[in-house]
Amino acid sequence: MSNSCGKLFKLTSFGESHGKSIGIVIEGMPSGYKINHNFIKSELARRKPGSSNLTSKRKEDDDYIILSGEKDGYTTGAALTFIIENKDIKSKDYEYIKNHPRPSHSDFPALIKYNGFNDIRGGGIFSARLTAPMVIAGAIAKDILMTKGIKIVSRIKSIYQINDIDLDSGNIKEEDLNFSDKYFPVIDKEKMEEMKNIIIKARDEENSVGGKIETFIFNLPVGLGEPLYDKLDSRLAGAIFSIPGVKAFEIGKGFGSSSLYGSENNDFYYYEKEKVKTSTNNHGGTLGGLSTSMPLVFTTGLKPTASIGLSQETVNLKTKEISELTITGRHDPCIVPRAIPVIESFAAVNILDLMLIGGFYGGI
Amino acid sequence: MSNSCGKLFKLTSFGESHGKSIGIVIEGMPSGYKINHNFIKSELARRKPGSSNLTSKRKEDDDYIILSGEKDGYTTGAALTFIIENKDIKSKDYEYIKNHPRPSHSDFPALIKYNGFNDIRGGGIFSARLTAPMVIAGAIAKDILMTKGIKIVSRIKSIYQINDIDLDSGNIKEEDLNFSDKYFPVIDKEKMEEMKNIIIKARDEENSVGGKIETFIFNLPVGLGEPLYDKLDSRLAGAIFSIPGVKAFEIGKGFGSSSLYGSENNDFYYYEKEKVKTSTNNHGGTLGGLSTSMPLVFTTGLKPTASIGLSQETVNLKTKEISELTITGRHDPCIVPRAIPVIESFAAVNILDLMLIGGFYGGI
Amino acid sequence: MSNSCGKLFKLTSFGESHGKSIGIVIEGMPSGYKINHNFIKSELARRKPGSSNLTSKRKEDDDYIILSGEKDGYTTGAALTFIIENKDIKSKDYEYIKNHPRPSHSDFPALIKYNGFNDIRGGGIFSARLTAPMVIAGAIAKDILMTKGIKIVSRIKSIYQINDIDLDSGNIKEEDLNFSDKYFPVIDKEKMEEMKNIIIKARDEENSVGGKIETFIFNLPVGLGEPLYDKLDSRLAGAIFSIPGVKAFEIGKGFGSSSLYGSENNDFYYYEKEKVKTSTNNHGGTLGGLSTSMPLVFTTGLKPTASIGLSQETVNLKTKEISELTITGRHDPCIVPRAIPVIESFAAVNILDLMLIGGFYGGI
Amino acid sequence: MSNSCGKLFKLTSFGESHGKSIGIVIEGMPSGYKINHNFIKSELARRKPGSSNLTSKRKEDDDYIILSGEKDGYTTGAALTFIIENKDIKSKDYEYIKNHPRPSHSDFPALIKYNGFNDIRGGGIFSARLTAPMVIAGAIAKDILMTKGIKIVSRIKSIYQINDIDLDSGNIKEEDLNFSDKYFPVIDKEKMEEMKNIIIKARDEENSVGGKIETFIFNLPVGLGEPLYDKLDSRLAGAIFSIPGVKAFEIGKGFGSSSLYGSENNDFYYYEKEKVKTSTNNHGGTLGGLSTSMPLVFTTGLKPTASIGLSQETVNLKTKEISELTITGRHDPCIVPRAIPVIESFAAVNILDLMLIGGFYGGI
Repeated sequence: MSNSCGKLFKLTSFGESHGKSIGIVIEGMPSGYKINHNFIKSELARRKPGSSNLTSKRKEDDDYIILSGEKDGYTTGAALTFIIENKDIKSKDYEYIKNHPRPSHSDFPALIKYNGFNDIRGGGIFSARLTAPMVIAGAIAKDILMTKGIKIVSRIKSIYQINDIDLDSGNIKEEDLNFSDKYFPVIDKEKMEEMKNIIIKARDEENSVGGKIETFIFNLPVGLGEPLYDKLDSRLAGAIFSIPGVKAFEIGKGFGSSSLYGSENNDFYYYEKEKVKTSTNNHGGTLGGLSTSMPLVFTTGLKPTASIGLSQETVNLKTKEISELTITGRHDPCIVPRAIPVIESFAAVNILDLMLIGGFYGGI
Repeated sequence: MSNSCGKLFKLTSFGESHGKSIGIVIEGMPSGYKINHNFIKSELARRKPGSSNLTSKRKEDDDYIILSGEKDGYTTGAALTFIIENKDIKSKDYEYIKNHPRPSHSDFPALIKYNGFNDIRGGGIFSARLTAPMVIAGAIAKDILMTKGIKIVSRIKSIYQINDIDLDSGNIKEEDLNFSDKYFPVIDKEKMEEMKNIIIKARDEENSVGGKIETFIFNLPVGLGEPLYDKLDSRLAGAIFSIPGVKAFEIGKGFGSSSLYGSENNDFYYYEKEKVKTSTNNHGGTLGGLSTSMPLVFTTGLKPTASIGLSQETVNLKTKEISELTITGRHDPCIVPRAIPVIESFAAVNILDLMLIGGFYGGI
Repeated sequence: MSNSCGKLFKLTSFGESHGKSIGIVIEGMPSGYKINHNFIKSELARRKPGSSNLTSKRKEDDDYIILSGEKDGYTTGAALTFIIENKDIKSKDYEYIKNHPRPSHSDFPALIKYNGFNDIRGGGIFSARLTAPMVIAGAIAKDILMTKGIKIVSRIKSIYQINDIDLDSGNIKEEDLNFSDKYFPVIDKEKMEEMKNIIIKARDEENSVGGKIETFIFNLPVGLGEPLYDKLDSRLAGAIFSIPGVKAFEIGKGFGSSSLYGSENNDFYYYEKEKVKTSTNNHGGTLGGLSTSMPLVFTTGLKPTASIGLSQETVNLKTKEISELTITGRHDPCIVPRAIPVIESFAAVNILDLMLIGGFYGGI
Repeated sequence: MSNSCGKLFKLTSFGESHGKSIGIVIEGMPSGYKINHNFIKSELARRKPGSSNLTSKRKEDDDYIILSGEKDGYTTGAALTFIIENKDIKSKDYEYIKNHPRPSHSDFPALIKYNGFNDIRGGGIFSARLTAPMVIAGAIAKDILMTKGIKIVSRIKSIYQINDIDLDSGNIKEEDLNFSDKYFPVIDKEKMEEMKNIIIKARDEENSVGGKIETFIFNLPVGLGEPLYDKLDSRLAGAIFSIPGVKAFEIGKGFGSSSLYGSENNDFYYYEKEKVKTSTNNHGGTLGGLSTSMPLVFTTGLKPTASIGLSQETVNLKTKEISELTITGRHDPCIVPRAIPVIESFAAVNILDLMLIGGFYGGI
């Protein structure tokens, strides 16, 4: 197991989907920070299932309890520990799954790795439920970063084959990213409706769909990132791939840059009001692993939810014969909307950590 | 700075492009391992410039010296330290660049981060030259992994807009990946010629091109990877983004999965000769961050070389005016071919580290 | 804050004395290990206050709850998380202490470090109460080590100026260490009574006493420890100094060796039944930071409990005048007996971690 | 192997006594720091053998070469790498030792650990020679700490059974620590001569002697140290035990406190010119693992040099019979004088690291 991430703003996650609690230990908080409960709750609400017909009907209250590190609303300087108790648990017969691994789930490799002792109920440690405590940590990191003007905003770039409009990230500003539905942030309202409809269609057909999320980070200081092995893009890529369902990640123009000439891909410098900018932002805000003066832009590719109600083929691990499998239960037909605050949280905690390491709050 | 990576097979890199030496300290080697110098040299040869008209004319002998950890050809159990001296150095006038940051280079953010004290010559720590010692470490890791049958093979998937043929990674076998030019591994020979021609064309026009590399890893044990934060895909993504020029990374079908229904994307299980396989391999060999029984497949997107001879616009950081910039010198018109052993090396050292952490060489 | 220790058997502690809970996250447990609750409870009982007139009357039930990592009595391979709720809390007026730091307590430096935001109740993070979860982790580590025959046994070497008999650690065997009172392990019964009496006397006089603990570890494999910076003695010394009240640590003859000639201090080798031994054990079982074939022997020096009822002088931090201070409440007149399982636990978790790192459970 | 220490001021050591080079990679240096070569050289001179008749005659020039991280005398922000080449090497017949482990040396456990592949010449990785690069890092750390007024001073407290005068660490000031012989810092000149004479006597008799070193650190900020596992005393204890020959460590009154009543051991607060002080300093400058406002005081116990010319008994590992051993060669009859800059260096690098971690150069 490897449950910790970060060096100075350091997080240790624990829990299993249907165990007693899930939680997170946050090290590196200064003492005297006032915990912004309203913001934490609003961030958790973005991740919470059951809020619309687009998500799973599993009700997770996500009410958190602070075990340590807080007194009278302020941090004490001790490790800040949050837990969320697991309540709305329906542990049906997971015995069947033990011998019939669900396609594109972690069931099969987890069975081998843990010799059958892993808690398979609700996906155990592989459940996206474990991202809830990370959203708490992310909310705190965001809250701290906002005092330096740093903002993280995301939009749904595509669902299935429906794409939102392209944005010119060379000129994008935070105020350009206004969304009519904050739980489903798409710029083009018609596209938003199409996207929602394809999700509902997938749900009704016992199917699921994937999609892409584009994230923008504004007002980072220049030079954030630590070569050689904690480069800003490297840290973000590694973190984002910790999120269940992520299969692809790119910075700026990403794979698109691979099909270009250098003369097409290079971004030219100019000054705008005493500030160095580039006319285009194909580089997406990082060069040499360091933040530039342009907005950081990255895109995350998520696969369709693996759990679908449609009949699928798998094997019976005892008889080694092919077997039909029908997955029942409450599943998101599309994980994209709920993944947004998770992606932003992973970005926020890593950026705060790199700011601390890099001396952006002071150094020798 | 953050110069170390890995936990048990742990690497510490150092050096600057035009400093005295570059090098790497390898911890975690057992004693009594016979260093395979021939293999290290053949791997370095794949990364070395100057071997064809497709690469930079900078001659780097890449002759390494072992400072510690070896005696009579075997490892002693001490930290194994390799250095490569920097010889063919032409440190021209980098003063101009200090005030005129090259487009899409690290010049500007590095200047800010290091207050102008960084060694800008040859790119300093941002130079791809620092990947040479990693190729040494990668060769050692590969050599060790091969005793377990694990093989890492890559091909050039595309250069500019020219794509090699698609491969069905559900059925791919190591022996399917044979290449006529090991320094330019493409399956379709006609496409290979087209790719080489576009690189030569770019070079002749003082331009550059990007491309994609697809990497296959065969015979990994099932269950490799450590949730929550050292998942196999997470580790690989973070590592690959440490490589200069990388802008995108995907596992299996990657971004393609984001446009699919779950019923299209899910891979169904079956048995082939007592071994669990999937009929397709959209998941690319990892589920839940763990290796499955299928080949690991990932694609890396590289941008075109930022250094091009064509005239470009930048700013004069003193006068804040726009200035024309022409970059002279010896640059690769395309970094893709030489990036292959680097990508494989980063993959190899991370896989070996995860095997040690995960108890694949023994545990409690 | 720095709440984690260990690399492969890795622990993250959290909690404050009068907060909601204290706890520990254990990473690195294999799946399928049967948790030995009886042993954990018997180890916790050794640390628990309130069991005799020699200890604090504070009642701590130390009933633990497992939040994650366990199912049906076996580990699942997930992070194993234990908490102990804080119940018998009497948070008196700590306001006075905030301005009148208790002599030889952490009050003053903690106030400065945390800007007054730290939770001073019960000592907050500085309370020895935080060692209870470490005893749980230690019990698990001991239980695992015992399967390799490794045993950790301690005795009280001295209380105040009363010393137990000397032992010849060159010939010591585990069976020589039998104690009439397992909560107060002394070899010489008369000395034991004297020690207990001086503690009772100190308690009755509202005073406290210090003492020394000698710890023996039998049957370690030869070569345990990782030069240069995870040497066996280095790891143990660092760990033991994490324990509240520890002021001194020595291996083998320790400071005594500093007063000897080399010819007196060196231990000569011989064979006993095919096993390499030394005639004396001044080196205490480590040479060059590695375990030898002799028992590991180290001594820990603990200061008298800082909290005493006798009137003491301190300063009023507001008026800067000297002020009389009388500490009331339930304090151990001597922390030595209860420190024993804590010392053994810190030793056990570090030894298990070094065994994993060093490949004693398998390696390349 | 475990060759790294520190988190933000992070060091990676490498090398073997008779290998090509020994060296150190320093991460965490800011760019633009002017390397103080004179100070580094004067510190190395304190550690260097061959300077008097009290030390080994082995000549080590300790001339260092910078491989990376420096340009024109200033740090570049890259990893700062120093090497020292091994020159005055006399690799005599170490074959004999392979089968006849030297008493109280690492020979036997190292042989087992590394399966006979370790480089035994000159002690390999166990040689005190590997502390030379640490003295370079220590000199840099000291140089940086001095800009905050922090000073580290040591004296020889005892050699064999000859003790320097006691010091009242409650009132000690830096200016009280003046020494007539900076390479042999003792306060009482008569005692100094006695100490030197016992070393010469030991040398002439082919024997060796041990001793103690007391180290004082002045002007630390209050609150340095990171509970729970990077406490100031814990860090120092772990670091000091990395040094070859160390067998004991205590803070303040140390083991002496174990024989006291609390009323005798507790240090009372008072104000001296607006500064909180304690009338005595039994606590030695740390409480709860945090620095107080008093000088940090710790004592290190070193054993006599294990290599002595007198005939000793060991075993022949092949025949299993007892064998006489006479160690020839150039050995220090007492390692205490040369250990002083090493102890101070380990202290300095850890203090600087804790200052960075603790936000003493700035934080959120």
